[in-house]
Amino acid sequence: MPAAPFTDAELEYLASQQLGRLATVTPEGRLQVKPVMFSYNAAEQTIDVGGHNMGGSRKYANVKANAEAAFVVDDMLSANPLRLRGIEVRGNAEALAGQGPEPAGSGGEIIRIRPRRVVCSGIDAAEPGIFGGPGRHSRTV
Amino acid sequence: MPAAPFTDAELEYLASQQLGRLATVTPEGRLQVKPVMFSYNAAEQTIDVGGHNMGGSRKYANVKANAEAAFVVDDMLSANPLRLRGIEVRGNAEALAGQGPEPAGSGGEIIRIRPRRVVCSGIDAAEPGIFGGPGRHSRTV
Repeated sequence: MPAAPFTDAELEYLASQQLGRLATVTPEGRLQVKPVMFSYNAAEQTIDVGGHNMGGSRKYANVKANAEAAFVVDDMLSANPLRLRGIEVRGNAEALAGQGPEPAGSGGEIIRIRPRRVVCSGIDAAEPGIFGGPGRHSRTV
Repeated sequence: MPAAPFTDAELEYLASQQLGRLATVTPEGRLQVKPVMFSYNAAEQTIDVGGHNMGGSRKYANVKANAEAAFVVDDMLSANPLRLRGIEVRGNAEALAGQGPEPAGSGGEIIRIRPRRVVCSGIDAAEPGIFGGPGRHSRTV
């Protein structure tokens, strides 16, 4: 199995957050971005995105037509001074049917994101600040 | 002046939230999505996105090369039952320099999003539920 795409601290952060936001592209080249439920799939080393009526959703159709996806989980610890933490994942997404009940709310259909690029900010003991500030680091996985 | 792209309730919601997430496309056709500070510009009827080092950011360069953008503001009122509110804005974005100090943190450079399509969920007195559920409505502006 290849090295996990996330560190233990990043996995802990992902598990602590309930919502992420998923960006996909329509067949016409338009963007959409939606709040989504997600979970980390340790066996596949992917981010699995579920939700009510996933199989009938536009984002599911988008991913079927174009695998490109970006996903971000973040939260703000304080506004002034600005202290943000977050993890952005860019990668190839698959629209899958017949999966298990995870993540919550999925009816068996999920979008599975295979990380290609991970950008972290304010995780791994770095002091949270602006997103993309000094506490930022990114890597290709 | 054309009709405002948002209702009063939607504007109130936008003003109540501190972070949005902005999706843009790289010149290579990859997606990125980032947490961003924003404000509604009533004079221009646009969403103005700012932030530290905006002019040097990848998202600013992305928008210069490709105007397509999607932006979402949302929050979760409860996880079980799932009660989400939010507004997604899709439109054309401009990378502008020499703007004022708003939104907070901008050094004069901003990304201005001109709404083309607005999707609301759980605003306007609709009972918040799943994003895209019964409380959802969308319109072209």
